[in-house]
Amino acid sequence: MDLKNYLKDRRQRIDAALDQYLPAEDSLPERLHQAVRYSVFAGGKRLRPILMLAACEAVGGDTEKILPAACAMEMIHTYSLIHDDLPAMDDDDLRRGRPTCHKVYGEALAILAGDALLTEAFIQLSGMNGNTFQADDACRRATHIIARCAGSRGMVGGQVVDMESEGKEINLPTLEYIHTHKTGALILASVQVGALLGGADEASYDALTRYAEASGLAFQVADDILDIIGDQDLLGKDVGSDEARGKATYPALLGLSVARNRARDLRDLALESLAGFGEAAEPLRQIAHYIVDRSF
Amino acid sequence: MDLKNYLKDRRQRIDAALDQYLPAEDSLPERLHQAVRYSVFAGGKRLRPILMLAACEAVGGDTEKILPAACAMEMIHTYSLIHDDLPAMDDDDLRRGRPTCHKVYGEALAILAGDALLTEAFIQLSGMNGNTFQADDACRRATHIIARCAGSRGMVGGQVVDMESEGKEINLPTLEYIHTHKTGALILASVQVGALLGGADEASYDALTRYAEASGLAFQVADDILDIIGDQDLLGKDVGSDEARGKATYPALLGLSVARNRARDLRDLALESLAGFGEAAEPLRQIAHYIVDRSF
Repeated sequence: MDLKNYLKDRRQRIDAALDQYLPAEDSLPERLHQAVRYSVFAGGKRLRPILMLAACEAVGGDTEKILPAACAMEMIHTYSLIHDDLPAMDDDDLRRGRPTCHKVYGEALAILAGDALLTEAFIQLSGMNGNTFQADDACRRATHIIARCAGSRGMVGGQVVDMESEGKEINLPTLEYIHTHKTGALILASVQVGALLGGADEASYDALTRYAEASGLAFQVADDILDIIGDQDLLGKDVGSDEARGKATYPALLGLSVARNRARDLRDLALESLAGFGEAAEPLRQIAHYIVDRSF
Repeated sequence: MDLKNYLKDRRQRIDAALDQYLPAEDSLPERLHQAVRYSVFAGGKRLRPILMLAACEAVGGDTEKILPAACAMEMIHTYSLIHDDLPAMDDDDLRRGRPTCHKVYGEALAILAGDALLTEAFIQLSGMNGNTFQADDACRRATHIIARCAGSRGMVGGQVVDMESEGKEINLPTLEYIHTHKTGALILASVQVGALLGGADEASYDALTRYAEASGLAFQVADDILDIIGDQDLLGKDVGSDEARGKATYPALLGLSVARNRARDLRDLALESLAGFGEAAEPLRQIAHYIVDRSF
């Protein structure tokens, strides 16, 4: 398979579904829905929904049926970016080269656009019934996994500890807490929900959980490395921005070469966890490579 | 029945359940969970969860089983207050006589505490299984009702139009849009979910929907009246604050006496919709009186 084409195809399917599910720009309140769409269609990689579809595929599930859940993940991811960029938080004027939501629509509307997107994710998750979905039980469990990973003991918790750690000396366990929560939790939820809704048995679900934990952390280590050596296009933010903010990173704590070894080890761990899967897990394998190899 | 004792008893049950469901103050991240609890336990009337339990009771349901959903409503209500109070929004320093969340914990943590509470609501809704809950189908439908009422076409939408209307001349349909969305939507969801989870048949569900629509709007008309004539204790905010902000209100648009007639008509409409219910709907009837009669 050709990863580049695969990612492009998936991105297009997800974008089309997002366009279908999100309220139209001319539906009331119009500016709110414009702000929501401005941020959702700002050129994201759609990594989380792609991982969900790939995990579903790996266990032989029907990816078409889980598009509402995949889009829910992207809505949650986008809401977190909008809120992170706010003046009271990271105070970022640009994201992916475009003015951030609050720069265009104002702070109040940006807060509300984030709130609306988080809520919309649960509208989608709880609306996956009838012709698009299999069972209410799976729907409930998927919602629970996603809500837990997005909440105060997941992504929001990671963001809080990250914020509290800025400009402070932190140790590796704290850095690992931040990353497994702030970024890792949504990646984990994406893969677990893809597996669950794809009909995974227990052993496959556990193997995919290990895959997600390893590649989620690998993604963050690679991101930290890219922040130093990086290519701004790959990174989606300014090179050197972590250092400028006084944020702890893997290379800062471990040195560049140890950080690279850690990224490689995590990638290999992710690949090993897929050993029992056949051809259908090839996208997941290539994504693990893609996540890490861009930082070499 | 004695409404005062009824409300007190329900408030205590809901507070005990909230205390049980919310992350402990010493669980990581501690300051986030402290901020969450600070706002949740700031002395709210718990009107929305009480309405949910009362609707469940009216159709003969077991209120104990729906406490997670009732608490979810209060979490969503509290998140909306935290975000509404932010400097970028209403910029309020006090709520119910205490400093607002962002005054105590800072703006960033207040944004995240709101985010965490909104997410926690869906953790509770999707976690109502096994021994506390009846059916995954009802759980999914309840989640859908609540998410829709809380989202961009519900409460968040109402907040946006309210914000956009400040200091402008608005007409009655716009004011009604604001109220049915900003306040009415969560009241509607509370009653509908109480009915649904209590096992209502279609006719009872529809009657309770009419009750909720009428009393939700009545609540807001009465609130507007109280803002002028009011007693700060009943209101929970500064008397005259709507006028000071240039917010449109029913008395401002219609005059005080027409606004009072409107509140009475809505109360009577709510009571009529309960005509087919027996003794079990007595709390709902008395709550409709309580909502409106405080503004006379």
